[in-house]
Amino acid sequence: MGCRVAESFARQTFMATLGATLVSVTAGEVVIELCGREDLVQQNGFLHAGVTTAVVDSACGYAALSMMPEGADVLSVEFKVNLLSPAAGSRFRAVGRVVKAGRTLTVCQGEMIALDSGKTVALMTATMISVTRP
Amino acid sequence: MGCRVAESFARQTFMATLGATLVSVTAGEVVIELCGREDLVQQNGFLHAGVTTAVVDSACGYAALSMMPEGADVLSVEFKVNLLSPAAGSRFRAVGRVVKAGRTLTVCQGEMIALDSGKTVALMTATMISVTRP
Amino acid sequence: MGCRVAESFARQTFMATLGATLVSVTAGEVVIELCGREDLVQQNGFLHAGVTTAVVDSACGYAALSMMPEGADVLSVEFKVNLLSPAAGSRFRAVGRVVKAGRTLTVCQGEMIALDSGKTVALMTATMISVTRP
Amino acid sequence: MGCRVAESFARQTFMATLGATLVSVTAGEVVIELCGREDLVQQNGFLHAGVTTAVVDSACGYAALSMMPEGADVLSVEFKVNLLSPAAGSRFRAVGRVVKAGRTLTVCQGEMIALDSGKTVALMTATMISVTRP
Repeated sequence: MGCRVAESFARQTFMATLGATLVSVTAGEVVIELCGREDLVQQNGFLHAGVTTAVVDSACGYAALSMMPEGADVLSVEFKVNLLSPAAGSRFRAVGRVVKAGRTLTVCQGEMIALDSGKTVALMTATMISVTRP
Repeated sequence: MGCRVAESFARQTFMATLGATLVSVTAGEVVIELCGREDLVQQNGFLHAGVTTAVVDSACGYAALSMMPEGADVLSVEFKVNLLSPAAGSRFRAVGRVVKAGRTLTVCQGEMIALDSGKTVALMTATMISVTRP
Repeated sequence: MGCRVAESFARQTFMATLGATLVSVTAGEVVIELCGREDLVQQNGFLHAGVTTAVVDSACGYAALSMMPEGADVLSVEFKVNLLSPAAGSRFRAVGRVVKAGRTLTVCQGEMIALDSGKTVALMTATMISVTRP
Repeated sequence: MGCRVAESFARQTFMATLGATLVSVTAGEVVIELCGREDLVQQNGFLHAGVTTAVVDSACGYAALSMMPEGADVLSVEFKVNLLSPAAGSRFRAVGRVVKAGRTLTVCQGEMIALDSGKTVALMTATMISVTRP
């Protein structure tokens, strides 16, 4: 399970571009961490909402994949993000968790935590779909 | 109006990291373009949903800002993205449009178009808030 | 196509409870209308957001069903609603439209219009799933 | 606090139309219950998603109101609902909880539980706004 997620994560070149690292994979929960960096910010110096979304989306997607049968791949159908606080800080943790695993669709919830302050800066609810690996 | 958006866009270092360019700013509509790049993809070689979200979010946010009074800044409150098709291609256009401009909150809708195929690959609905510039 | 939607709509007893009527069904677009009523309101006398959601959700679901093969039924996977203005007035029109019809999932957008003022009071984006009729 | 919510709930005539009852109000959490009824269903006899949305939206809105200063009223800005399972059963509980209370905006999460099965049938994330009572 962990290997499948790790292999797929390694193919997501955008995670490397962001400097995001896969921290843990358990059945139905995936953790990704990210360091704050000057080239990842919006106009006020906070992490851009697209960066937050990217890592929480990957955490949710891989949480879903961790519950899917061998040979499956995962794609995001849709997600909704609420930005609770400015994403300020030097280190961030994205956690994705499966809420309901179905045969076709899996619903996940995720969050982004600013580790310096301990604040949850964003919440995601996402729908993932299981597809046959291309 | 265009200058205010252009100045703020220039401070969003993440847009430069993605290679995104601000193409046009009119009252209530902003266009941002992006080239496909190998370091921006998910596990199947399509643009990562976080990249798509980043540029459509910026397009929507700046569409909202384009309608706000002088001295205002814009922050994303929340957004919802539906991923309609894999984001395949060499060039992408994000369009953000104001649907309802209020004193405090502005609702926008945006889309990401894969210019090679002409397909809309993602839709966003976003709520933006007007804040006093820090 | 219209008959299938009309038959299903007639089984949605909640539409009768609300006094909602199916106005038109074309391929990919469904219109439902509703009269304002004193027993459908929230604390300020405006239509309750749940009423608005119900009729726009049905309009979107049936727009999706109108594009599905014979023998299919439709279920809502998820939706997102932005409430743009208080739903004031005596008559309302919900319009649901298919944005992307897929084999399994269909994405729709809908709106609720207050016919007295002509204002769009709510926007919906919804994901519908095609299931075998039970 | 409880009285303010109870008074407002009593003015939501739609809650009476649904037969929904306010069960508990504590700081940041509100519970509403509802009995299944034949006039509240969709085409397969399950509770209509609009009914579920209505009661979870009211639970979230009043959870937000429970944290707001005297003289405030609450309006829903937007919400997103994921329908996890068919809403089958004779009795349902909607729980709304404040996730982040701000001066202007409050973010809530809610769920609908089918009490017969114990299943969570729907999840909501909602943004509420504090307004001066009209």
